[in-house]
Amino acid sequence: MVPQSLAGQLAEAGRRMDVRNWVPGSAGNISARIDADNIAITRSGVHKGRLIEADIIAVDYAGKALVEGQKPSAETLLHCQLYRLFPPVGAVLHGHSVAATVLSQRGPITFSNYELVKAFGFATHELDVVLPVYENDQDMARLAAYIEPLLLQDPPIGYVIAGHGVYAWGTSVEHAYWRLEALEFLLQCELERRQLP
Amino acid sequence: MVPQSLAGQLAEAGRRMDVRNWVPGSAGNISARIDADNIAITRSGVHKGRLIEADIIAVDYAGKALVEGQKPSAETLLHCQLYRLFPPVGAVLHGHSVAATVLSQRGPITFSNYELVKAFGFATHELDVVLPVYENDQDMARLAAYIEPLLLQDPPIGYVIAGHGVYAWGTSVEHAYWRLEALEFLLQCELERRQLP
Amino acid sequence: MVPQSLAGQLAEAGRRMDVRNWVPGSAGNISARIDADNIAITRSGVHKGRLIEADIIAVDYAGKALVEGQKPSAETLLHCQLYRLFPPVGAVLHGHSVAATVLSQRGPITFSNYELVKAFGFATHELDVVLPVYENDQDMARLAAYIEPLLLQDPPIGYVIAGHGVYAWGTSVEHAYWRLEALEFLLQCELERRQLP
Amino acid sequence: MVPQSLAGQLAEAGRRMDVRNWVPGSAGNISARIDADNIAITRSGVHKGRLIEADIIAVDYAGKALVEGQKPSAETLLHCQLYRLFPPVGAVLHGHSVAATVLSQRGPITFSNYELVKAFGFATHELDVVLPVYENDQDMARLAAYIEPLLLQDPPIGYVIAGHGVYAWGTSVEHAYWRLEALEFLLQCELERRQLP
Repeated sequence: MVPQSLAGQLAEAGRRMDVRNWVPGSAGNISARIDADNIAITRSGVHKGRLIEADIIAVDYAGKALVEGQKPSAETLLHCQLYRLFPPVGAVLHGHSVAATVLSQRGPITFSNYELVKAFGFATHELDVVLPVYENDQDMARLAAYIEPLLLQDPPIGYVIAGHGVYAWGTSVEHAYWRLEALEFLLQCELERRQLP
Repeated sequence: MVPQSLAGQLAEAGRRMDVRNWVPGSAGNISARIDADNIAITRSGVHKGRLIEADIIAVDYAGKALVEGQKPSAETLLHCQLYRLFPPVGAVLHGHSVAATVLSQRGPITFSNYELVKAFGFATHELDVVLPVYENDQDMARLAAYIEPLLLQDPPIGYVIAGHGVYAWGTSVEHAYWRLEALEFLLQCELERRQLP
Repeated sequence: MVPQSLAGQLAEAGRRMDVRNWVPGSAGNISARIDADNIAITRSGVHKGRLIEADIIAVDYAGKALVEGQKPSAETLLHCQLYRLFPPVGAVLHGHSVAATVLSQRGPITFSNYELVKAFGFATHELDVVLPVYENDQDMARLAAYIEPLLLQDPPIGYVIAGHGVYAWGTSVEHAYWRLEALEFLLQCELERRQLP
Repeated sequence: MVPQSLAGQLAEAGRRMDVRNWVPGSAGNISARIDADNIAITRSGVHKGRLIEADIIAVDYAGKALVEGQKPSAETLLHCQLYRLFPPVGAVLHGHSVAATVLSQRGPITFSNYELVKAFGFATHELDVVLPVYENDQDMARLAAYIEPLLLQDPPIGYVIAGHGVYAWGTSVEHAYWRLEALEFLLQCELERRQLP
């Protein structure tokens, strides 16, 4: 159901996230749009740095596994939401980084005058880009419903769930990875900056 | 005596710990339950990032090597204790990380509102999870005796020996590694958080 | 147009920069002098950690691609400038590091009494070496014109564009990488030093 | 002149040091005792993370290359000194780490109550172990003469040259690497500890 080359790209993204320490334990989840009906996403309870083909399963846009008994990642609804709301989104990566976790416990994060915000399509570095931080909630349907109007009103460059981690997306798995890498870089800068006297 | 596939898993866990810088020099030790009589554990004085089969030996539940002359890790008794007290434990990993070493010099460590505590079976992030820190002691029998009632009274998610390192465990080597990775992630978050003004 | 061995050296430098986290997303650019007429440089919009031969294209000293339709890196003019001004320069590396980005937001950076400044040809460590920080500007022609007299007046060991990243160079790709590595090491030292009370 | 297996061990130690970012640019040097007359040491001006056999040359105990025209590392005399003073020393590793560089600018470094000091033969963690920091000097003969009585009077676990880097040694290349890894771990702990409020 999941095209083999797509599964390979997702596994490769997971390996790169693991090298950077963004998927500790079985944390994080990775997905890609297959077509108008289906999404490929990582199974629940697997290490994202060592994904095999069987770890990547197909779900519909309501987050239901196509093969009965397969259990998608707990946060599948948040992935589905992004594909549903934003047609250009082809892949979504969710990781847990130290910088995102620590900074998100202190409210929204603003990136000021960083060249790297250009990775998100801005034409200049001379601006303040806000990375929204949403309250964590174990009820995914409720969390998705809470986020939805915020996403639509002012589509962000990504978002963070407090004490949890980053959601990044792009037109392809590679593009989503680039944007995640840029976001995490900005978060590391911000963490170091705040640790200066 | 030690099944080859188990030795392979332990060596692989050691390599992953080394990449993260958790087994400097010959520090750390790694073990797995073989059966009701025996435990596989790393020999004393070997680098855990480059284990070969001969570096992993069998001991009984009293920590005595099955083959005379083989010298198990100094902390073998602490491993045996965990297998003895908790039947589901299938593997124990002990590493020395910078974060654990530094934080443990300042008393018990509390993780508040971190999503990643769910890696330890909690259903929510909305709680304070304590990682106990025990005083270091070079007398392993005395240290084990001191720890035992504390472990039984309120089984922790892992523990730290002050100025020393983390003990983590799980049902399998892979599961123990996931829990160690989650613990170390939380410790890194906590160290960075405390360095913010 | 680009000699294959030179493309290979540039791709290898990119891989090493990626391992150190200096080229997040599609950030950074890498070039080498081919001859009196041409420069090899990375294409715009590719990940510098996974360069293939087709990602490295030839431009003239005005930054114009030799093959119509090929788009060189946005900062190509800054590379051309260094080759034009300094005949011994054989390669230029531009990366975005966390340390350079954070420190450059606070003005010029001085390295005092570091042995590693000897990597830049100084005979002693007993001196203050300034790494100039230039204001960021999305207009590359204007930025190059602004930098030019400063580069000529007192040729620096490299330079940083504020909130952006480091430019380093050397007689060969390998030599430029060594100098970049030394510069980034000094920047990391300086960041850590300033975070001490 | 240099046994091939010894050259291989030195190259491997260099690769491991490079992964940890302890040999930026062409910094650092690595040596091993060959016999009563000769020492194998890295050539000047090569990257220690990518050593080939030709980069490792033989010198006598006065630091003179056996093959005319070969230029040993600038700090060769410091290596020779350790082999001359301490017969059990079989290998010496000198690297530049961020932690050693930053901390050494602030005077001698004391490690208190760290388990890992046991890597240096202490039977307990309950002590203060001093890592001496010597003033940097570009005159190696003078630096060696200054250090010599200090090394003999109270043989340290290693030493640091201020603003420069660590010297570690052991009975073999592997043993020296373990001690270097333990020293660098302690230095990282100490740097993080001092950055806590």
